[in-house]
Amino acid sequence: MAPCVSLLLPVFAILATLPIIQSAHTFFPRPSYDQSLAKQPNASKPKMPYKTHYFPQVLDHFTFQPKSSKIFYQKYLINSHYWQRGAPIFVYTGNEGDIEWFASNTGFLLDIAPKFRALLVFIEHRFYGESMPFGNKSYESAETLGYLNSQQALADFAILIRSLKHNLSSEASPVVVFGGSYGGSELKIPSQLLMLNGCMLAAWFRLKYPHIAIGALASSAPILQFDGITPWSSFYDAVSQDFKEASLNCYEVIKGSWAELEALSTQKEGLTELSRTFRACQDLHSLDSVWDWLWSAFVYTAMVNYPTEANFMMPLPAYPVQAMCKIIDGFPSGSSKIIRVFAAASLYYNYSRAEKCFKLEHGPDTHGLHGWNWQACTEMVMPMTCSQESMFPPSGFSYKEFAEDCMETFGVKPRPHWITTEFGGKRIDRVLKRSGGNIIFSNGMQDPWSRGGLALLFLFGILFVFLANHYVLKNISSSILALVTEKGAHHVDFRFATKADPEWLKELRRQEVEIIQGWIDQYYADLKRLNNE
Amino acid sequence: MAPCVSLLLPVFAILATLPIIQSAHTFFPRPSYDQSLAKQPNASKPKMPYKTHYFPQVLDHFTFQPKSSKIFYQKYLINSHYWQRGAPIFVYTGNEGDIEWFASNTGFLLDIAPKFRALLVFIEHRFYGESMPFGNKSYESAETLGYLNSQQALADFAILIRSLKHNLSSEASPVVVFGGSYGGSELKIPSQLLMLNGCMLAAWFRLKYPHIAIGALASSAPILQFDGITPWSSFYDAVSQDFKEASLNCYEVIKGSWAELEALSTQKEGLTELSRTFRACQDLHSLDSVWDWLWSAFVYTAMVNYPTEANFMMPLPAYPVQAMCKIIDGFPSGSSKIIRVFAAASLYYNYSRAEKCFKLEHGPDTHGLHGWNWQACTEMVMPMTCSQESMFPPSGFSYKEFAEDCMETFGVKPRPHWITTEFGGKRIDRVLKRSGGNIIFSNGMQDPWSRGGLALLFLFGILFVFLANHYVLKNISSSILALVTEKGAHHVDFRFATKADPEWLKELRRQEVEIIQGWIDQYYADLKRLNNE
Repeated sequence: MAPCVSLLLPVFAILATLPIIQSAHTFFPRPSYDQSLAKQPNASKPKMPYKTHYFPQVLDHFTFQPKSSKIFYQKYLINSHYWQRGAPIFVYTGNEGDIEWFASNTGFLLDIAPKFRALLVFIEHRFYGESMPFGNKSYESAETLGYLNSQQALADFAILIRSLKHNLSSEASPVVVFGGSYGGSELKIPSQLLMLNGCMLAAWFRLKYPHIAIGALASSAPILQFDGITPWSSFYDAVSQDFKEASLNCYEVIKGSWAELEALSTQKEGLTELSRTFRACQDLHSLDSVWDWLWSAFVYTAMVNYPTEANFMMPLPAYPVQAMCKIIDGFPSGSSKIIRVFAAASLYYNYSRAEKCFKLEHGPDTHGLHGWNWQACTEMVMPMTCSQESMFPPSGFSYKEFAEDCMETFGVKPRPHWITTEFGGKRIDRVLKRSGGNIIFSNGMQDPWSRGGLALLFLFGILFVFLANHYVLKNISSSILALVTEKGAHHVDFRFATKADPEWLKELRRQEVEIIQGWIDQYYADLKRLNNE
Repeated sequence: MAPCVSLLLPVFAILATLPIIQSAHTFFPRPSYDQSLAKQPNASKPKMPYKTHYFPQVLDHFTFQPKSSKIFYQKYLINSHYWQRGAPIFVYTGNEGDIEWFASNTGFLLDIAPKFRALLVFIEHRFYGESMPFGNKSYESAETLGYLNSQQALADFAILIRSLKHNLSSEASPVVVFGGSYGGSELKIPSQLLMLNGCMLAAWFRLKYPHIAIGALASSAPILQFDGITPWSSFYDAVSQDFKEASLNCYEVIKGSWAELEALSTQKEGLTELSRTFRACQDLHSLDSVWDWLWSAFVYTAMVNYPTEANFMMPLPAYPVQAMCKIIDGFPSGSSKIIRVFAAASLYYNYSRAEKCFKLEHGPDTHGLHGWNWQACTEMVMPMTCSQESMFPPSGFSYKEFAEDCMETFGVKPRPHWITTEFGGKRIDRVLKRSGGNIIFSNGMQDPWSRGGLALLFLFGILFVFLANHYVLKNISSSILALVTEKGAHHVDFRFATKADPEWLKELRRQEVEIIQGWIDQYYADLKRLNNE
C-alpha cells in the first residue's frame, strides 16, 4: 500500500499495487470534511468591497474556427474606490475557484491600494466559479475541458485587461499582476495543486505579456515543479521537514502511524474500531478515507503554518504545525500512534471544537470530473513521490501508468514537457536575467511548495542565510527578485495585515510594496520621457 | 474604381464599388505571370547543402482535446557541416511556402555558419510546403485552417527546437532565430504579406520564447503594421516614394496611367486594344488583370530594389526602380502613359526578354483557398489604403465590409486587436527596452514594408540621419538594435554575399554578425559562470 502520491497526483501510480482504491469517480481522493466549512464567513474578514462584472470572452484564442469564436462570460471583480484615471491597475490572476473567495483572502491588495491609488481587478479563471464556458456541461468531456489550460487563461487575462483599460480611457495605466491563492470553492486536495497554478500564472503572464503587465508578484509559485527540474519527492520531503523541525518525535509518530493503521484495518472489526477512533459520522468502508483525512490535515497544516491565528482553509492557531506536534508529544511514551495522529489531525478539522463527528468518506464530486484531474492529465504533469525520509509511506511514480490512465479517462495523452517548453524551466535563471524583468518570487520556507520555487534560487547559486525572524532579500538580476522568509507559509504575504503580524512579515510586505513602487516609478518616468520626445 | 487596396488586403473594400471583380475563387487578385518562373534554378545560386527531415508535430498546442493530439509531419532542413556539439544553432523560422525556397534565398546563414560553427535549421511553417496537417485537405475549410496561425507556428518551432537539441545531446547550445523571407512557392501577391509574417515570427519568437532563443534577427519585420499603429496608407505611400525619388515624372506618369487605362477599357474594343498593347497571351476579359499585373510589377520592384542584379522574385537589374523610371522617362513627352507603364512593367516580367506574350489573367489557385486569405480574416488584419499622394488610385478600407466578407467566406470573424494583444504593438519600444532583449530589427528604406517596421523607430523618438551609402546604427536599449539602411530593400541582408555588394551592405552584415557574436559570447559566459558556481 503506497498511497503517498495519492494525495496529490498519481492515483495512477497506486493502481498497480492497489487497484481496489481506484474507481472512475474517485480519480483523486478528496478530504471528506464539510466543504462548506471553509466558506463560512470569517468574523475577522471585512466585507467584500468589489463590484461584480462579466466580460464576453473568446473561448479559443489559438484556433480560429467558427466554433472557437464562441463567447462565454468571464466574471471579474473591481474596486475603484482609490483609483483615478492613469493610476496603476493591480490585477489578481485568478485560478481554480470562485473569484470572490480569492478576493476575500488577498487582503494585501486592499491594504496597499490607497498608497498606489490603484484599481483592483480580480479576474476569475475560466472553468471555475461562474466562468463556465459551457455552463454546467463544462466538465462533461474532453471536448469541453480541452479549453481549460494555462495558455488560454493567460490570453483571457490579456484581452480582458486591454479591453478594460480601453473602456476606462486609461491605456497608459501601468498594470501589475499578482498571483498567489489557495484552493477555494472546492477545497479538494487536487485544488491545492491548482492553487499554485494561480501563482505561476502571474509570473508566466509577466513573461509572456510584458507589453501588458509591467511586473508580477508571484507568491509561492512552484514554477519548477515540472519535468524533473525539482526532485519528485521534494514536496512531501518539505512537509515532513516542517514536522521534523517542530519535533523529531512528532515526525516519527506520524511516520509510524501508517503501518499501525494498515495493521489494524486488516484485523477483524478493524474498520469498525477505526470508525470509532476517528469519530466517523458514518461507518468506514476502507482505510483510504482515514488515510486521506490524515494526509490532508498534515499537508494543509504545513502549507498554512502561519505565525498568527488564521482561517485560511480551516480555523487554526498560530504555528499550527508546532501546535499539532505539541499534541502528539503530549501523550505518554508508548501511546497508540493512531490515537495520537487522530488527536493531531483533530486540531485541523476541529479547532473550534464544534464538530461532533467527522465525515471521512468522500463526498460526491459536484463537477463530475474535477478541473485539476484534467489539467494534471494534459499540461500540469507534476510527478510527486514519497522518499524513505518522508513521514509518509514511500511511493514511486510510473509515467507509463499515469499516461495510460489519462488516455482511458479522458482520451488524451499528457504532454509532460509542454509547460517547460512554453514557459521555460531548467536554467530559467539565465533566461530571466537576460530577458525577463520585474518579477518578485516570494517563498516561505515553511511552505512545502517552496521547494518548487526555491529550486529556482538554488539554481542561481545564491547563498541563503536563514535568520530566525528575518527574511533574506537577494537580487537575482536588477529586476528579478527573490524574497524568502524562513517562517513564511503559503503566500502569507497576501493575507490582510493584522496587529499580530510578526516583524519579518511586516518587513516582507514593506519590501514588496517598495519594489512595486520602483517598477511604477520607472514606468511613469519612461512614459514622461517618451511623451516629451 | 478603387483597386489600390486590392493588391494586398481588402478586396472587400472594393466590393461596394466594384462587385463584378469579386468572385469566390479570386478572393485576392494575383499577378498572372508564370509562377514557375520564380522557381527556376538561378545559375548564381549554389546547390542546397541541406538534409531533409520530418518532425512529428502536435496539431493543436493550446487545446487539449483528443483530436488536437493529432500528429502531422513538419518538414525541416539541416546543415551540420560546420557544427559540433555545444556550438550555436541558427534557426530560420519559416513562413508561407516551401522551406527549400527560403533556404536557397537565405544565403546569409550559409555565409556565416563557418565563423560560428553553427548548425543551420530551416523549419517549414505549418500549412505550407509539405507540412500540411491534413494533407491535400488542409485548405478545405475553417475546420482545418483553424490551426493555421502564428501562435501555433511559434509553438511548433519551440517544440521542434527543444526536441532537436535533446536528440543532439546539445541542450546547452545557444539558439538564434532568423526571420526574413519572401513569398516563395506561390508568389502570389497576398504571399507578400505573409513574407512579413516570417520576419515577424522571429521577433515574436524571441519575445515569447526567450528561454529557447537567445536572440533574433528580424529583417524587414513590419511588426507595427497592425491595429492602426502605422497609418494604413504607409505601405503604398512608400512604394510611391521610391518611384518619386527616382523621378518625379516617372511617378506622375504611373499616377496618371490608371485613369487612361480605365478610359480606354470602357471604349468599344478597348479591351481588345489593351490585350494587344499588353501583349496578352489570351484576350482580356476585364481591366482588372492589367491593373493587377502593373500593380504587382511596381510593388515587387520597390521591394526588391537591390543594389545588384538579382533574381529574387524575377531576374532584375541593379536598382530596378531607377531602371523602370529610366524607361518611362525615355519616352518623348506626351507619349501615351499606357505604353510607358507597359514598357516599365515589362522590365519586371521580361528582363530576360524571353517572353513572347504575358499571361495577365489569373491562374488557378492551386490551394483552393490560399492560406493568407485565411490569416488575413483571422489574426493578420492589416488594413491598407492608398492616399491622394500615392501613385495608385486613392482608396479606403471598410472594416465592416471586410468582416462581413470574412464571415461569408470562412464563417469566422476577424480579431483585429488580437495580434497587438498577444505580441504588443503601440509603445512596444518601452516594453522591449524593459523586458525584451537581443533583437535586431533591420530595415531598408527602399522597402515599402519598412514603414511598418520603422514606425517602431519613430516611436523611439530617435533622430535618424540617412547618409547616402551609409547605414545608421542606433541602440534602442542595450540589446534591442535597429539597423537601417537608406538604400536597403526587402531583407537584402539575408541574401548570399556577392562581389558586387556595395560597402553599406557589407557593413550591415558585418554589424549583424558582430552583434550576434556578442549575444553568443554573453551566453557562454553566463553558462560558464553558472557551471562554476
